[in-house]
Amino acid sequence: MSHIAITELLKGTVAVDSQVTVKGWIRTRRDSKAGISFLAVHDGSCFDPIQAVVPNSLNNYDEVTSLTAGCSVKVTGVLVKSEGNGQSFEIQANSVEVLGWVENPDTYPMSAKRHSIEYLREHAHLRPRTNVMGAVTRVRNCLSQALHRFFHEQGYMWISTPIITASDCEGAGEMFRVSTLDMNNLPRTDKGDVDYSEDFFGKEAFLTVSGQLNGETYASAMSKIYTFGPTFRAENSNTSRHLAEFWMVEPEVAFADLDDVANLAESMLKYVFNAVLTERRDDMEFFAQRIEKTAITRLEEFVEKDFAQVDYTDAITILEQCGKKFEFPVEWGVDLQSEHERYLAEEHFKAPVVIKNYPRDIKAFYMRQNEDGKTVAAMDVVAPGIGEIIGGSQREERLEVLDARLEEMGLNKEDYSWYRDLRKYGSVPHSGFGLGFERLVAYVTGMGNVRDVIAFPRTKGSATY
Amino acid sequence: MSHIAITELLKGTVAVDSQVTVKGWIRTRRDSKAGISFLAVHDGSCFDPIQAVVPNSLNNYDEVTSLTAGCSVKVTGVLVKSEGNGQSFEIQANSVEVLGWVENPDTYPMSAKRHSIEYLREHAHLRPRTNVMGAVTRVRNCLSQALHRFFHEQGYMWISTPIITASDCEGAGEMFRVSTLDMNNLPRTDKGDVDYSEDFFGKEAFLTVSGQLNGETYASAMSKIYTFGPTFRAENSNTSRHLAEFWMVEPEVAFADLDDVANLAESMLKYVFNAVLTERRDDMEFFAQRIEKTAITRLEEFVEKDFAQVDYTDAITILEQCGKKFEFPVEWGVDLQSEHERYLAEEHFKAPVVIKNYPRDIKAFYMRQNEDGKTVAAMDVVAPGIGEIIGGSQREERLEVLDARLEEMGLNKEDYSWYRDLRKYGSVPHSGFGLGFERLVAYVTGMGNVRDVIAFPRTKGSATY
Repeated sequence: MSHIAITELLKGTVAVDSQVTVKGWIRTRRDSKAGISFLAVHDGSCFDPIQAVVPNSLNNYDEVTSLTAGCSVKVTGVLVKSEGNGQSFEIQANSVEVLGWVENPDTYPMSAKRHSIEYLREHAHLRPRTNVMGAVTRVRNCLSQALHRFFHEQGYMWISTPIITASDCEGAGEMFRVSTLDMNNLPRTDKGDVDYSEDFFGKEAFLTVSGQLNGETYASAMSKIYTFGPTFRAENSNTSRHLAEFWMVEPEVAFADLDDVANLAESMLKYVFNAVLTERRDDMEFFAQRIEKTAITRLEEFVEKDFAQVDYTDAITILEQCGKKFEFPVEWGVDLQSEHERYLAEEHFKAPVVIKNYPRDIKAFYMRQNEDGKTVAAMDVVAPGIGEIIGGSQREERLEVLDARLEEMGLNKEDYSWYRDLRKYGSVPHSGFGLGFERLVAYVTGMGNVRDVIAFPRTKGSATY
Repeated sequence: MSHIAITELLKGTVAVDSQVTVKGWIRTRRDSKAGISFLAVHDGSCFDPIQAVVPNSLNNYDEVTSLTAGCSVKVTGVLVKSEGNGQSFEIQANSVEVLGWVENPDTYPMSAKRHSIEYLREHAHLRPRTNVMGAVTRVRNCLSQALHRFFHEQGYMWISTPIITASDCEGAGEMFRVSTLDMNNLPRTDKGDVDYSEDFFGKEAFLTVSGQLNGETYASAMSKIYTFGPTFRAENSNTSRHLAEFWMVEPEVAFADLDDVANLAESMLKYVFNAVLTERRDDMEFFAQRIEKTAITRLEEFVEKDFAQVDYTDAITILEQCGKKFEFPVEWGVDLQSEHERYLAEEHFKAPVVIKNYPRDIKAFYMRQNEDGKTVAAMDVVAPGIGEIIGGSQREERLEVLDARLEEMGLNKEDYSWYRDLRKYGSVPHSGFGLGFERLVAYVTGMGNVRDVIAFPRTKGSATY
């Protein structure tokens, strides 16, 4: 292609006085009385647009002065140092070609004025053209690339665990059914029930809520694996932290105990935050200016501080004795609420904190039981300003303990035969955790709602585009 | 963690005579008459196991001589140069701890003998422990990492396009329905139809078949984007090339024409093949030895050769005049069959070939119409030994041409309102393509069936695990 990304020009990769061509969209246009137009052109490659200075000597100068926000253009000219106090470089244009006009600029949904976040959400197909969603998109990309890089450098294998699952392991409720049955003419068994043996997979199938159990099979062979893929919850939660479809990162590590994966979580988060601080300074400065004042400083503090570690039991004592009145009362055995987690991270430890060894009765069947008979080797990573960001555990690798737990919880051993096989054949201690990717992006950018950090959010009642 | 990956030892990263600990699974055990046992231990980090030489002076030597394939162990000892003709390094063990036994070795599904690929598929939760599936997993990981790296280095943004879609754009048929309706008690409208306004998203929803249309919205803001995520086809195709759930890579590039993305496809494929040749030599040597003799040489040839380029119309002439008898007759206007594509790549051009400008009547509504009024700017990349590996096109960016095409095909303009918006507001020429990731992995490894290059394949009648 015969053009260059604007980020390359603004970074100073190209020699001054070179002839360059950029292609992008008009953010703003300003005409001077002296017969010069100033076009701010963006192409998504970085936060800032580049300024093109267009003299009225151009043949199509009347076209130039008709340009409005969102029009697409090809600008050719000489790269020069900028004398203004904005960008360091600009283009002295000797040609401006209009590639696409904006039909009826007065009704263009992304006009140059400032729009509310809610309004942008209603125009999800056009919102990446705005400053804020462009910045979110670049930071999201930066985080995902850094995650892959982190795990790859550490010898982890990316595994794609299945999206459609007919496994009974994942626990019913809040799952989406996947089917090709004709809804207006459902096949029936003799007893009158829906006959799923006629369905595409020959039985009931759902969208996955987690790749963990499948991930454990691969960790039991490759040692270190991670997933990074979409997961689903059919929850009717209309909150700023829930999506029906979201991306999750789930490392699973053979021969690792709970402390090992707590350390993994710490180094992973610090690695990706450092990547954002280094690679997306431009976007982070915007977030700090317009969205969340502490966007940069809290990441900088995060990467500098050691994580605190506290046992659930000690955390309960801290909360009971802190003298603070919580909406949800605290006593040993209850699950921690967001207000408790945030008190611990923000006021008590003033640092990210790993809370470990939760009561077994509030945790999943697969978590490893501790010696005390009361707790399991589970952890949550809780960060100031967001609360829980990671949940993980050491997995129960002892077949007899697992079986007793399945029985106790009224689960059918047969349904878990392949999962139990991992404990029959060369079982190893292993641990892992899950990180909700959208919550991570929301935390980094300071965006208040996960719907604004994924391209096309899916929530109860909404699956447009 | 206190142990080291076997790949580090075999690469020579660790000084000879160091005390080292590895953790992994037994592949084989051999006992010498002199009272020494040789354990081949693998941990998934590379193709080869490391040999641990265990003297009968160990306290638990009776345990060591009971080890069978699949048992998990922790081995500590001194790293020494190997005198045998296998690996370059081995461990003189001074401790072997058994972490997990294999219950009833005679019935262990992954016993040391050679198993058929079909048998392994029936034990998908254990098959990554085999040589062949371990190698597939590492090569798959290498390809995915290389793809992300390639796009990232070139300034592309990874976008997660939605998995669940209620958009009417994707064309009906062969899609999986996503629903939370109670199948035994479906809500009905006054007319007696299923009332999807009661469903989770307030209307009918399906699993995506492609992220392209959504990807175009982001390319129209960020310029260069790609997707890498799961896509779905509810096809009843029981072939070695089809999965109901598969991963797809879809770059979409603003300001790019068909030739630009043909070049992008060429450099992308060469980049990832080079990565495999460099980083996974060990696994590729295994594939060349046991699965597909030309596994390495054909990749080497692929990266050295320039892609051929041919117009569909010229390709038809070549096929008509080649004197070869095809099962499917050839004439202008028909879609090319696999036998035609392979003839062109393998016998005529003897190189990967980009076939361009197909008849409009056999292609999708969104492909850009050429001046001749008969063809569209579509392309397929066809490779020797596999056939079609990539399909792409320049997209129709002219609103009036797109609208005429929608009308001609009986599609409802209203259903495409957000897609049409991209043509109303700063429309730009843009192009993209789709790469089926499993077909890529199958091609690279020489594995004959896409079910054997994804961890847990989903096909008609099968969604186990």
